[in-house]
Amino acid sequence: MASEFDIIRRYFTRTGKRALLGVGDDCALVAADKGTVLAVSTDMLVEGRHFFAGADAAKLGRKALAVNLSDLAAMGAAPRYATLALALPDADEAWLAQFSQGFFDMADAFGVELIGGDTTRGPRTISITVMGIVPPQLALRRDGATAGDEVWLSGCSGDAALALAHLGGRTRLGDAALAHCLARLHTPVPCVALGLALRGLASSAIDVSDGLLADVGHIAESSGVAIELRYAELPRSRALKGCADQSLVQECLLAGGDDYELAFTVSPDASGRVASVAADLGLTLTRVGSISAGEPGLVSVYDASGKLMQIANRGFDHFGS
Amino acid sequence: MASEFDIIRRYFTRTGKRALLGVGDDCALVAADKGTVLAVSTDMLVEGRHFFAGADAAKLGRKALAVNLSDLAAMGAAPRYATLALALPDADEAWLAQFSQGFFDMADAFGVELIGGDTTRGPRTISITVMGIVPPQLALRRDGATAGDEVWLSGCSGDAALALAHLGGRTRLGDAALAHCLARLHTPVPCVALGLALRGLASSAIDVSDGLLADVGHIAESSGVAIELRYAELPRSRALKGCADQSLVQECLLAGGDDYELAFTVSPDASGRVASVAADLGLTLTRVGSISAGEPGLVSVYDASGKLMQIANRGFDHFGS
Repeated sequence: MASEFDIIRRYFTRTGKRALLGVGDDCALVAADKGTVLAVSTDMLVEGRHFFAGADAAKLGRKALAVNLSDLAAMGAAPRYATLALALPDADEAWLAQFSQGFFDMADAFGVELIGGDTTRGPRTISITVMGIVPPQLALRRDGATAGDEVWLSGCSGDAALALAHLGGRTRLGDAALAHCLARLHTPVPCVALGLALRGLASSAIDVSDGLLADVGHIAESSGVAIELRYAELPRSRALKGCADQSLVQECLLAGGDDYELAFTVSPDASGRVASVAADLGLTLTRVGSISAGEPGLVSVYDASGKLMQIANRGFDHFGS
Repeated sequence: MASEFDIIRRYFTRTGKRALLGVGDDCALVAADKGTVLAVSTDMLVEGRHFFAGADAAKLGRKALAVNLSDLAAMGAAPRYATLALALPDADEAWLAQFSQGFFDMADAFGVELIGGDTTRGPRTISITVMGIVPPQLALRRDGATAGDEVWLSGCSGDAALALAHLGGRTRLGDAALAHCLARLHTPVPCVALGLALRGLASSAIDVSDGLLADVGHIAESSGVAIELRYAELPRSRALKGCADQSLVQECLLAGGDDYELAFTVSPDASGRVASVAADLGLTLTRVGSISAGEPGLVSVYDASGKLMQIANRGFDHFGS
């Protein structure tokens, strides 16, 4: 059987270009470029919780890194380095080959070097720490939104949750809609270019991973402001538009999670610049609400007639019921 | 029940001094001091593999960080930051209070700021990434040993393994010996001060976590040299000296692991400086072997009569049998 050291050598060692020292010593050595600092984020994915047992290993390798890069994107940071800690029930070489291929496909697409990690036997668990660089004064923090700012969303929310609803038997999607939603669930693409373009433009930003309401709620809390969302203006995919169960649609849009889009705020006089960014990057960016001086941390959703909506499911909590 | 966000707020958020931005945003923001780079290392600890189910949570919190700081020590890096990813079967508040207390005790002892992380439900698993700073030209790498260098070891190896041998019923320690060995197993102290003192002195270094033979083997491989250890000169604790089972003693000393001592090499004319470091820090540092120009990666052990020893168990492999 492959040893721990064989596994690292065979699947997780590549020659890097940027790190002063990469995989293979007690530590890696890295430096930030002049005028920048390192942005650091960590995520942990657990089998049966964040991905199904038997999940496609290549897609899992891609996604595990993608969800971390999404945090760098939300900070306006350019990706640079990652460490990977991996617990596996056994040293399954086919799984390792596929997982590492998916991981490095995503790493190569965004210029990320794997600089270190750990492999051990245990219940299948993936923990990744990513590092990127950003000039500190241009970092997209959560605490910069002010009353009067507009709230924007990239792409649309809810498709990954709609895929899960289909897989769980709660709805039945047609082939095209299912294929679209499964791709959104299993192969999300982090909004790295958008994060970079929002430097100096967005007053705050966050990536939508736990559900739109919960995540903009973090902006509201950190910034000490209230947020008002306009439900009718939330962008929807064709798959979600085709779903007749309006309660499910609402849950997917507002509390679905696993979207890896960016929600961000800009001052109202910056709408034109946002439109330019959308055009330059070929992205759909939609104004979905505004910041008010109401109760700090409060997120309210209004329907098309301007009536406050009652929302039961407000997002994902890993220790909630 | 406490939510994921409550847990982070209650147990894992403290005001830091060094990080530009700590826990609570998509990423933390950190910078290295002028003239230094960041040293980065990641470890993953799994219940049932690296620690027992029901292990004392405070000691576990201490040790989880300590084993990571040991990697920084082996690089000659000064500890600065850590991220913590934690999977837990449930949000057990007593466990969290103890674990975080232990973690922060260790963090405070070595000036480490917790800058981010992730908590999720899953089989109990702890993944920590630590960051320290070191002037790049002074980093203690594995690849700098040259023929003629001496091999040194801090403290002694084997006590943690002897504790495990007792717990597994393979030997029976007296009360004092058991207490000593259990402390070495459960509350290791990373050799941070020694790592800093070895900057510019050691030609290579590694921390002893998988067993002395396996770990100095990494120096031999990376440096392209052979290592000759003198078995009779390996330092032994009183507990290990009191053990009559010489086969067990040999296994503990050479292949025990979980020691978190530093093995390092210096040029032969630097023995006096090593002795000064030992005196300054109040540490026992012992010359245990030498580097030769033999087969790269080979580690040989010689007995007191100069005879080559045959070693069956050569160290810990997380995917070995």
